[in-house]
Amino acid sequence: MNEIERLITLLARLPGLGPRSARRAALQLIKRRESLLEPLAKALDDAARTIRTCAVCGNVDTTDPCHICAAETRDAALVCVVEDVADLWALERTGAFRGRYHVLGGTLSAIDGVGPDDLRIPGLVERASAEAVKEVILATNLTVEGQTTAHYITEKLAPTGVTVTRLAHGVPVGGELDYLDDGTLTAALRARRTAEG
Amino acid sequence: MNEIERLITLLARLPGLGPRSARRAALQLIKRRESLLEPLAKALDDAARTIRTCAVCGNVDTTDPCHICAAETRDAALVCVVEDVADLWALERTGAFRGRYHVLGGTLSAIDGVGPDDLRIPGLVERASAEAVKEVILATNLTVEGQTTAHYITEKLAPTGVTVTRLAHGVPVGGELDYLDDGTLTAALRARRTAEG
Repeated sequence: MNEIERLITLLARLPGLGPRSARRAALQLIKRRESLLEPLAKALDDAARTIRTCAVCGNVDTTDPCHICAAETRDAALVCVVEDVADLWALERTGAFRGRYHVLGGTLSAIDGVGPDDLRIPGLVERASAEAVKEVILATNLTVEGQTTAHYITEKLAPTGVTVTRLAHGVPVGGELDYLDDGTLTAALRARRTAEG
Repeated sequence: MNEIERLITLLARLPGLGPRSARRAALQLIKRRESLLEPLAKALDDAARTIRTCAVCGNVDTTDPCHICAAETRDAALVCVVEDVADLWALERTGAFRGRYHVLGGTLSAIDGVGPDDLRIPGLVERASAEAVKEVILATNLTVEGQTTAHYITEKLAPTGVTVTRLAHGVPVGGELDYLDDGTLTAALRARRTAEG
């Protein structure tokens, strides 16, 4: 395999790129050597050298603890539990959360043989037992695995005495009822609130 | 901008990756440091070091002249003209062409200010004037720009005396008439052939 083929093969392993788009990406890289190929090679090198996993929360960052765990301004009483770093990034983009995170690194799965010790659940229980933490918000996905994991964590956290909450379920902002699945509509109905004047 | 953000920004500039898929790709790279991130960084470095443009035909390869121009087994009498290296790769994948190529590097475009000297057209006329070349196959795209470019090249090649041909237009293999545009159907009708027993 020559250098071009090897590059295409590796690019095709990125999520979102198939064999065809990997070829297009490789050509683009070759054409824009100075403005794209060389900077990307350097960015990957830098990433490999500097990026680490936060020992506290499982976030990826260039520092350990990560900038969120290290920030004095973030509320240490609030810990939001997510499956993956991508979920943490999504919540951070909203700017609506000023607490800290705990990245599980997946969900419990009997089929894939993922048990509690394969995720960061023991670490979460330990953190929740610390005096500073008052509330744990479970923000796992609304999938069977995500909900099973949330349920398991709720039970594990019961002895610590922290408040355990869940993200609200309901109609997405901008969502049209006609296009929503029955489960979401049912959840939205059950969790209905008094209309505010 | 830290190392993660820089990586995402660069990945988002690859064709086929938007901001969202660039974030997913970056996370995948960070998670698979040894099996994906480091090999890709090396592949990009190798590519930047070894890949060059063939001075004869404009193909990209690790050698100059490229392996197609250098191959004694390829028919030097046949030169297939394509807009881009991606088109060359597409034709090579068919395994149906045993001649050589000429990569224009784009199409003539008054709007974008692309003239004959910005493409590899002078080099093509020079090649076509060489005794070995008997036929030039124009495989530019069936777009206005591609056809304008093909027309221009046909005129430029007339004095050289080489045979100039075009790829056949018609119904794609597996294509359903009902879904084809009128232009393709018209071309297929006009270029109809006697059915073979």
